[in-house]
Amino acid sequence: MAEYDLVGIGNALVDVLAPVDDLFLEGQGLDKGAMTLVDTDRATAIYDKMPPAQEVSGGSCGNTMAGFASLGGKGAFIGKVRDDQLGNVFRHDMQAIGVDFATPAASDGPATGSCLVLITPDAQRTMCTNLGAATHLGPGDIDKNIIQAAKVVYMEGYLFDPPEAQEAFVEAADAAHDAGRKVALTLSDPFCVDRHRHAFQMLVQDHTDILFGNEEEIKSLYQTDDFDRALQHVRGHCEIACLTRSSKGSVVLSGDEVHIIDPLPLDKVVDTTGAGDQYAAGFLYGYTQGMDLYRCGQIATLTATEIISHVGARPEVNLAELVARELG
Amino acid sequence: MAEYDLVGIGNALVDVLAPVDDLFLEGQGLDKGAMTLVDTDRATAIYDKMPPAQEVSGGSCGNTMAGFASLGGKGAFIGKVRDDQLGNVFRHDMQAIGVDFATPAASDGPATGSCLVLITPDAQRTMCTNLGAATHLGPGDIDKNIIQAAKVVYMEGYLFDPPEAQEAFVEAADAAHDAGRKVALTLSDPFCVDRHRHAFQMLVQDHTDILFGNEEEIKSLYQTDDFDRALQHVRGHCEIACLTRSSKGSVVLSGDEVHIIDPLPLDKVVDTTGAGDQYAAGFLYGYTQGMDLYRCGQIATLTATEIISHVGARPEVNLAELVARELG
Repeated sequence: MAEYDLVGIGNALVDVLAPVDDLFLEGQGLDKGAMTLVDTDRATAIYDKMPPAQEVSGGSCGNTMAGFASLGGKGAFIGKVRDDQLGNVFRHDMQAIGVDFATPAASDGPATGSCLVLITPDAQRTMCTNLGAATHLGPGDIDKNIIQAAKVVYMEGYLFDPPEAQEAFVEAADAAHDAGRKVALTLSDPFCVDRHRHAFQMLVQDHTDILFGNEEEIKSLYQTDDFDRALQHVRGHCEIACLTRSSKGSVVLSGDEVHIIDPLPLDKVVDTTGAGDQYAAGFLYGYTQGMDLYRCGQIATLTATEIISHVGARPEVNLAELVARELG
Repeated sequence: MAEYDLVGIGNALVDVLAPVDDLFLEGQGLDKGAMTLVDTDRATAIYDKMPPAQEVSGGSCGNTMAGFASLGGKGAFIGKVRDDQLGNVFRHDMQAIGVDFATPAASDGPATGSCLVLITPDAQRTMCTNLGAATHLGPGDIDKNIIQAAKVVYMEGYLFDPPEAQEAFVEAADAAHDAGRKVALTLSDPFCVDRHRHAFQMLVQDHTDILFGNEEEIKSLYQTDDFDRALQHVRGHCEIACLTRSSKGSVVLSGDEVHIIDPLPLDKVVDTTGAGDQYAAGFLYGYTQGMDLYRCGQIATLTATEIISHVGARPEVNLAELVARELG
């Protein structure tokens, strides 16, 4: 029996959230809604101009693991922080929600990675990520015993940005498959797909069992403007593909099986980011509990809807209770 | 002409906020609603048991200065952080709201101070403060040029806890008076008053022009169970005394002048702490702009009401706009 339901591998980041207006983004030359990689000097320059902020643990995969644990799943996280205050914050928050996090902190090199999250009044987030210590996640950090003790290993596409992590990525996938486990991947961001398209295509084709991507990401992956064309492409490449479409709901594909999952009604979208992270958390929770794909998609939609109803990318309610109440 | 309206001196702290239940407080042996001083080991032990948290800049006087700047006042802050990540967070948040903060960070010794803020479902906060670098605020950090460049110097009673800061306290008061400036003091906490009653009594009598205290604090100061008796005591000792009484409103005394300020209606009190900090911010803003005492009390009541309507001890709206809208 697997010791973990899910092990996630991702960039360990602390979010620094602040409200700004569109003029701020223009002044800093930032693409609204995008995630831009920045070095420490650039991050410092932007932070110096930012209004007062709050610090919370983040990282795409970290957010997914927090949601997964809140649903009742048993999870572990692999990612790199430094032995500094924000690294301690990240580790505390991961362990406090019941996710095992044993990757040793770096004792030198750059500080724990952070993500400046600029929230505009239209509920969009523009992100500037300084990967920091996360760039030092290497193959040596991939604990095969943990990978092989989990039903599924889940990796974020953002891991393709730090060069050493790409190698860790393939190593983790191979270790999982050697033990008969499943490999799940999220494409993370259309610009990230654009930066590493060929590598992503190979990974999806050769190493991925369960793929998550939104409409922009999957279209970027296959360089098409047509969602259906992208869908037909991916269909043969992975065992399961979950394609999310914001207010249009999502599509779950597996061989001949196709499910169209409708969105849930919501009075007000407060903050869209984290939706994809929580969709993956909900889907993988259902999957690792042996539920059928339609049910997995329903849980995913519910958890994604919870996250966009408030500011912040980690759930504010107990998701297991939410699922029991809403889906029975 | 004074360069600053207000200079605040206080413990520079970063808050670590998390929701807990009453059982958690019992398990940790904490007095509900109180501020307990803890050393690093104890703080670490409590943090290890806490749920995921968010980090925001805090400190009683820091909160007041943030409110004061939001009202449109020109302020400066004196307090001690270390040259670490949380120290940078505190400095950023202070400067980002327009408060000058020039006290040099300590380059060795304990880390930047923090306050574990445990929020129970009844909207009460229980706080565990690890003063850290704040214990090293000494007379050398009291920049007399800044003190004498401000109309009022405002100090928090919590400054009586770090031993070196008491000396800094009196030095700042003397410097202000030498330049014909006013000295304001908040009693901060009934237990803090209890710890340092004699020193507080002397300071109120000999060095304080404007005193802030809530009902429990002023009763503790004069060791009486009767609010009116405490009021009569304090009346002769300070030029102005502002006594806050939670849902019963507040009383402002100055010589023969007495104002009873009614509370404002509020649907739901979400989180009570920070109310005293923002009362002081509002009152001192009015005072430094030369407004009459009743108007000062009205602004104070409005800013205190804003802060208890949400989680967190720093304002979530532009207070200058709020005052213009509500008080004209």
